Amino acid sequence: MAKTKPTRSRKPDSAARRSPCPVACSLDILGDRWSLLVIRDLLLGRTRFKDFSASPEGIPTNILSERLVRLQQHEIIAQIPAADGTKHRAYQLTPKGKALGPMLKEMRDWGLKWEKGTRA
Amino acid sequence: MAKTKPTRSRKPDSAARRSPCPVACSLDILGDRWSLLVIRDLLLGRTRFKDFSASPEGIPTNILSERLVRLQQHEIIAQIPAADGTKHRAYQLTPKGKALGPMLKEMRDWGLKWEKGTRA
Repeated sequence: MAKTKPTRSRKPDSAARRSPCPVACSLDILGDRWSLLVIRDLLLGRTRFKDFSASPEGIPTNILSERLVRLQQHEIIAQIPAADGTKHRAYQLTPKGKALGPMLKEMRDWGLKWEKGTRA
Repeated sequence: MAKTKPTRSRKPDSAARRSPCPVACSLDILGDRWSLLVIRDLLLGRTRFKDFSASPEGIPTNILSERLVRLQQHEIIAQIPAADGTKHRAYQLTPKGKALGPMLKEMRDWGLKWEKGTRA
């Protein structure tokens, strides 16, 4: 008998949403400690797995791999050939991903204003 | 011998931060699926545990309790007497909490634009 395990749909499923609230739906995708840091890195011009992995927060590689898949499933990032022609994969923000810029900026500004010791 | 368990500092500790990046620090506090929904509810005028608990996303009460403590520790919300004079506790946003409004608005707008079937 084939080994079965609970499968996660490859296509994000709107039926898995907690509510139709756009804040809740955004958090269904991005509500964790790491996803928006990958978006931040991409906005800062980083494109490769090793670049994200080298960020000071030290994202574990298994979490990074999972997030990159999820962000692709939600069409927030897309895979592109590496600039140096190697087999390494690189990523870029889609228009949907770039559209997170203003939200990230507000989050940065909030942190800068209200959390002591932060710096951009 | 007294039973010991790992303690979490009651005062948020900047040494526990992953980096001084203001986005990362914001996510250290708010990077989960639920915290910003409580902030949303407060911005919408809800003030009591049972109000948050009744929101359509169905936050589990143990998670809600933990988040309310954490948000108080970070001075994002403050406890106030219930408007009806009962012993039930209510909450309000502090200035630091109200300052999350623009970020929530960007998150809402992003969800409305990019996630089909969402409605404010």
